[in-house]
Amino acid sequence: MRIRDYGVVVGAMEPGRLNKITDVPGVRVGHATIDDPLHHTGVTVIMPCADNMFVRKLTAASFVLNGFGKTQGLVQIDELGTLETPIALTNTLNVGKVHDALVSYMVARCEADRFEMRSINPVVGECNDAAFNTICDRPVEERHVLEAIDSLCEDFEEGCVGAGAGTSCHGLKGGIGSSSRVMDIAGKRYTLGVLVQSNHGTLEELHVGERALGREIIEKRKQLPQAEPSDRGSIMMILATDLPVSDRQLRRILRRCSVGLARNGSYFGHGSGDVMIGFTTENRVPHGGMHRVIEQKVLTEHTLELAFRAAAEATQEAVLNSLTAAKEMTVLDGTVKESITKYL
Amino acid sequence: MRIRDYGVVVGAMEPGRLNKITDVPGVRVGHATIDDPLHHTGVTVIMPCADNMFVRKLTAASFVLNGFGKTQGLVQIDELGTLETPIALTNTLNVGKVHDALVSYMVARCEADRFEMRSINPVVGECNDAAFNTICDRPVEERHVLEAIDSLCEDFEEGCVGAGAGTSCHGLKGGIGSSSRVMDIAGKRYTLGVLVQSNHGTLEELHVGERALGREIIEKRKQLPQAEPSDRGSIMMILATDLPVSDRQLRRILRRCSVGLARNGSYFGHGSGDVMIGFTTENRVPHGGMHRVIEQKVLTEHTLELAFRAAAEATQEAVLNSLTAAKEMTVLDGTVKESITKYL
Amino acid sequence: MRIRDYGVVVGAMEPGRLNKITDVPGVRVGHATIDDPLHHTGVTVIMPCADNMFVRKLTAASFVLNGFGKTQGLVQIDELGTLETPIALTNTLNVGKVHDALVSYMVARCEADRFEMRSINPVVGECNDAAFNTICDRPVEERHVLEAIDSLCEDFEEGCVGAGAGTSCHGLKGGIGSSSRVMDIAGKRYTLGVLVQSNHGTLEELHVGERALGREIIEKRKQLPQAEPSDRGSIMMILATDLPVSDRQLRRILRRCSVGLARNGSYFGHGSGDVMIGFTTENRVPHGGMHRVIEQKVLTEHTLELAFRAAAEATQEAVLNSLTAAKEMTVLDGTVKESITKYL
Amino acid sequence: MRIRDYGVVVGAMEPGRLNKITDVPGVRVGHATIDDPLHHTGVTVIMPCADNMFVRKLTAASFVLNGFGKTQGLVQIDELGTLETPIALTNTLNVGKVHDALVSYMVARCEADRFEMRSINPVVGECNDAAFNTICDRPVEERHVLEAIDSLCEDFEEGCVGAGAGTSCHGLKGGIGSSSRVMDIAGKRYTLGVLVQSNHGTLEELHVGERALGREIIEKRKQLPQAEPSDRGSIMMILATDLPVSDRQLRRILRRCSVGLARNGSYFGHGSGDVMIGFTTENRVPHGGMHRVIEQKVLTEHTLELAFRAAAEATQEAVLNSLTAAKEMTVLDGTVKESITKYL
Repeated sequence: MRIRDYGVVVGAMEPGRLNKITDVPGVRVGHATIDDPLHHTGVTVIMPCADNMFVRKLTAASFVLNGFGKTQGLVQIDELGTLETPIALTNTLNVGKVHDALVSYMVARCEADRFEMRSINPVVGECNDAAFNTICDRPVEERHVLEAIDSLCEDFEEGCVGAGAGTSCHGLKGGIGSSSRVMDIAGKRYTLGVLVQSNHGTLEELHVGERALGREIIEKRKQLPQAEPSDRGSIMMILATDLPVSDRQLRRILRRCSVGLARNGSYFGHGSGDVMIGFTTENRVPHGGMHRVIEQKVLTEHTLELAFRAAAEATQEAVLNSLTAAKEMTVLDGTVKESITKYL
Repeated sequence: MRIRDYGVVVGAMEPGRLNKITDVPGVRVGHATIDDPLHHTGVTVIMPCADNMFVRKLTAASFVLNGFGKTQGLVQIDELGTLETPIALTNTLNVGKVHDALVSYMVARCEADRFEMRSINPVVGECNDAAFNTICDRPVEERHVLEAIDSLCEDFEEGCVGAGAGTSCHGLKGGIGSSSRVMDIAGKRYTLGVLVQSNHGTLEELHVGERALGREIIEKRKQLPQAEPSDRGSIMMILATDLPVSDRQLRRILRRCSVGLARNGSYFGHGSGDVMIGFTTENRVPHGGMHRVIEQKVLTEHTLELAFRAAAEATQEAVLNSLTAAKEMTVLDGTVKESITKYL
Repeated sequence: MRIRDYGVVVGAMEPGRLNKITDVPGVRVGHATIDDPLHHTGVTVIMPCADNMFVRKLTAASFVLNGFGKTQGLVQIDELGTLETPIALTNTLNVGKVHDALVSYMVARCEADRFEMRSINPVVGECNDAAFNTICDRPVEERHVLEAIDSLCEDFEEGCVGAGAGTSCHGLKGGIGSSSRVMDIAGKRYTLGVLVQSNHGTLEELHVGERALGREIIEKRKQLPQAEPSDRGSIMMILATDLPVSDRQLRRILRRCSVGLARNGSYFGHGSGDVMIGFTTENRVPHGGMHRVIEQKVLTEHTLELAFRAAAEATQEAVLNSLTAAKEMTVLDGTVKESITKYL
Repeated sequence: MRIRDYGVVVGAMEPGRLNKITDVPGVRVGHATIDDPLHHTGVTVIMPCADNMFVRKLTAASFVLNGFGKTQGLVQIDELGTLETPIALTNTLNVGKVHDALVSYMVARCEADRFEMRSINPVVGECNDAAFNTICDRPVEERHVLEAIDSLCEDFEEGCVGAGAGTSCHGLKGGIGSSSRVMDIAGKRYTLGVLVQSNHGTLEELHVGERALGREIIEKRKQLPQAEPSDRGSIMMILATDLPVSDRQLRRILRRCSVGLARNGSYFGHGSGDVMIGFTTENRVPHGGMHRVIEQKVLTEHTLELAFRAAAEATQEAVLNSLTAAKEMTVLDGTVKESITKYL
């Protein structure tokens, strides 16, 4: 079930076919989920294209809304404006192992393609799922990353899967969620999609559309308000598009993901690493030395307005989808994280 | 009339005495308004303290949410983390003249205080009020800046005054608005206040609390939806506090002002220069050469959580107060910008 | 006289025809100098092109190496990656007046071109020439800016003219200096030029090529070493090129200007506002609404290597040219700033 | 042998006792070196203090001069201004494994100290040593990181050890190098030290003090000049101090490391990831929840001038020490990287 199945329509723009990030042509998503009594965690891989990304890099950008997080690979993205590996999401302490797995994958991929590669910039994002995952064990291994890549598809699962297996969002069970928007520019249709790993927010501030659902739930549960509620956890937001934009323009678009968060009730709490990474499948950049000058198409700046709204709406809906797709789960300490669906 | 007078309570935290930025002890605000058939514009001055700010600078920070704007003085604030002049807000094309007026003011002030000053970093923010103001005339003169300083007070006016005389917000008449929040930390009461010059947003996305008021208004007016609505104009957000924080912490707090904007329905449109400038009246920094080491008190990072929520709430309410205080006005082209009060 | 006239060749790349920023086709520079007993100051204008820059903006970037300065206009350059006015350099306290003069100029220009303009982002840089200029008087008026624009030419003067009339550099008389480099890429010749307003550095660290000239001068003068030498003043670096680059690439190039500074002996002292602003005459960006998608040519990243070296070399030589072109002058306090030529 | 043993004195400030980063009280450095026919690589660990850094974090900052690199951990350093693990340097493709090893180390450390830890931000820097190291093998394992930590000491080795085993610098053999400076402020002695992993620069631009040694070597070797020399590789610069500074001030200091690079002849080439990470052993920050307000001492800004010069000088000398300590080595392809000592 997704948020639209509950009659909640976010924003005014039209979603793509699946209303997922994979509506952007070429983009696929795969999960590997670890589900044993001590570990509910995993890895989610966003693959931007079918061909070798190291050979033909993607124009990319990042925006760190709140940097209490361990995301890897942003230094090079910010300098060169390109992405050369798939993006993997996982839990906080597994970042190193997943990083190394992406190196393995790209080494093998480049060997297969007979393309010499001696340097690569893996991009790994994370949320802290320690409530559901004995995190110091770092259970995500290279094989899970490869399993996620093997399972790449367009109509991927949302909720408690992959990197979302053990996350919490607005005091409820969180997970992976996605949404997309389409727009027509100069007679051509373009798509922008967002995938989130939601692990942020407080219950009391949760809004669903015009409904202050968090306060409703607190009242229903007859909970006492917390003296000092805190927003811990993080949210990773991955944005894909086929709009012809530059890396600077992508960064402008990424910043608007925060609008979706705020509309759902987040205030970007201190303990929450809120990180956006975006790429376009247009304006590919060749690796290496033969090329001197390349041509790129970019939107005029005022045309970005459509993309700004799309980013805001798709992020807002992706978070809500991560909530509706997530099922109630018992925390390692025995308490329960309910599903939002109980209250919709 | 303010938004609370209409029964709308923003957020969960308690406002200060006046529910204005001037609830922060020492902070005062003054306006000079120009109101003639061709010009509805002016200047608003935020004075952080009574003593000479050049001699004892304030810890300060800035955050540019969307940089399509002409705000001056941020380069030095970002490098040194200090503010050494009052902050003046005005219209886009008057920034140079107001900058020069602040130089004049600080030169005179330092001469009066017998303190040698040969370099100063005036801070001037702006919104584009060209709909109500024949902006190329640059009608704001040095005397208006001095008039605003002469009128400094705590219980200052909101709405169509000073730098808000000619601004529009969410398709309605905008202006100056303010709000504040108080919080108790380690047995001491602190205040955080925000003042906005609101000139941003689209009507269709306007929300007031849980109410999608913009869509309601469009229906009432039987307007046709715009093919491609655009968010032009800008918003300046000035944040004051007496919290003991560093400039880095202030920047973290400032970023949360964007939450308030988004909750009211902004998506930080392309044409909108959205700029935050903040200062604390704690941790003053002495000018010049005798001092070698100074002591500062700073909050632990997790304690900032309270300030984050306060910034989000105060900004959200300040924008709404700018709307409720603004009166209907006729645009230079003969059309009318209504007041939100008609619809509340 | 220029540094090459003294047999000092900076770097390995070839300079352009004039070895000035104006070797970039279309770029012109003009000065207005104020020279009376109390004021040695002025304004220097860098005009990137002959046509209206507001109508067809230039791709641009900035980099703040040390932000103890009052440069205006960077917020919008950083957000949109474009420049829409000429760049004016002046003294610290005259920034407001010069800003307003640029508004006047662009208003008149757009009126003449029958192009509606209601918002403009003037770019003004500054150094503090208070040693030679009774700076609080702000003697630079709108007419000086217009005079500088009237005097635009390719073979402009260096040294104690315009915004360099009252500056000091490495303990000697500084001023305006310039240099350029040419490079061949894919069968086409490109130019990169730098203009500096030099007002930075300590004498003791001054190097000219492989010669530690500063220490030589101190020995010749039998000066006692300072207990704690300080680098006050600032340097503005304006970089022009006709390379097909993006704004991100321009920022990468700009950062290499700092190499030239360091090689001459600067360590980017605390009191020195070190600011780079760059533009390319390629990849012009149309103002406004009709255009949706535009095409741009950009260099591949590794090709930037040539531009990096050119920026380093041209900045190093531009500073040295500012020194050799400057004449000995008496400071307001009666002491003398010597010319470097005495020691070469 | 170090550069001072060849009579070259860099700058005017006095070095500390060992003229190494470990002159900062509490700082220690350890290496683990891998030396087999296919792999010359390793890991170098900089340990800022003896006690648990997660429990009492260090004030820290980073500055990315050229972001073509894979350094990890900067997102959180930039947001929170603190460092909570030792810093490890290694080769480019081993970053993930070393990251994971630091997690292991900190998990064990916190368990031993009975301090709950479920999130940690390991900081790992890298250079690409693929010329000497079959890099896709990723030979650095967790045991090497622990071995480096076991070998922590003050008088650590420089040159072809640890993370410097396989690096090249200015066309010669590079490696690990270090230097320090002391300064007296308000009657107290402070130290600032730098450690570099040098893997950057072109031969032709190498300068040693006032000597253009690179050009001398090229002449001696009767090499033909390269058509388009390129600066590939990267340099990691770790700066330690006991100065009472804030994270913002540390970032200002870090930026001056680039002065040392430029004076040795680097122009921060495209392919070189040039990254600075710095910390102070003053102003420690407690983890977690009991503390609300903490006191910090910071230098006044103009006092930083001394630290700026120290950073420039120590970096310049650290790179030269990395060269003099490095021995000639045969590259995997059979060519030879000479030692600079042959030419001094």
